[in-house]
Amino acid sequence: MTLIDNGLLILPEEECLDLLRVGTIGRIGVTMGALPAIFPVNYGLLDGDVVFYTGDGVKLRAALEGAVVAFEVDHIDVAGRAGWSVMIVGLADDVTDPMELAAVGGLGIVPLAGGDRSHAVRIRSHFVSGRRVA
Amino acid sequence: MTLIDNGLLILPEEECLDLLRVGTIGRIGVTMGALPAIFPVNYGLLDGDVVFYTGDGVKLRAALEGAVVAFEVDHIDVAGRAGWSVMIVGLADDVTDPMELAAVGGLGIVPLAGGDRSHAVRIRSHFVSGRRVA
Repeated sequence: MTLIDNGLLILPEEECLDLLRVGTIGRIGVTMGALPAIFPVNYGLLDGDVVFYTGDGVKLRAALEGAVVAFEVDHIDVAGRAGWSVMIVGLADDVTDPMELAAVGGLGIVPLAGGDRSHAVRIRSHFVSGRRVA
Repeated sequence: MTLIDNGLLILPEEECLDLLRVGTIGRIGVTMGALPAIFPVNYGLLDGDVVFYTGDGVKLRAALEGAVVAFEVDHIDVAGRAGWSVMIVGLADDVTDPMELAAVGGLGIVPLAGGDRSHAVRIRSHFVSGRRVA
């Protein structure tokens, strides 16, 4: 079954997860005060959940509060008029369990920026959706 | 004056706007129901505001409601360990004034996806911020 939404092909969840495995940079959408904010992060995938490292700040606070966040990954080729985007929405969680931290460590995620990014955050995928330019 | 925030250089507003002029794809963060969502869009810059075309849907609804949205543009070179991101936060607005529509039309924004994307949305930049890997 092929679903098209205004020129965009709706992707099945399986394909969305495959695409998430390919990417290394995504953007997280959080609330900062009462305002929306979006930041790029290097991420990895652990059992279908997005995980990333962060320091003290808005992204860690979202995790400590168990906030619902959005995470988006895309690949867009403007010249080739092709592209896809995948979004997951779910609860952010501060990873503290040693076994889980070791599993995150095994993903080889290297934050681009220096500074202290020693907290691991996991976004428990609740909704997974994706679209491709048809 | 150079501000560093955990390995990230805080960019002055002038430089943020210069970087926004370079990009063609950004990601808009909106609320869909009560949940956050992020979608990529082709955009242009009009008097320091982000403008883009959209069809009927969540992005147009945000504009019609005058919702506060976040818009993020980045360029990240994983191999070179370099990158920047710029974010604007402001009220989304459905553009209906003919002169303003003509100005948006002059920016040459071409949505990547087919389908009906005849509504122009303008995000009135209220907060502009940016960071670069130091």
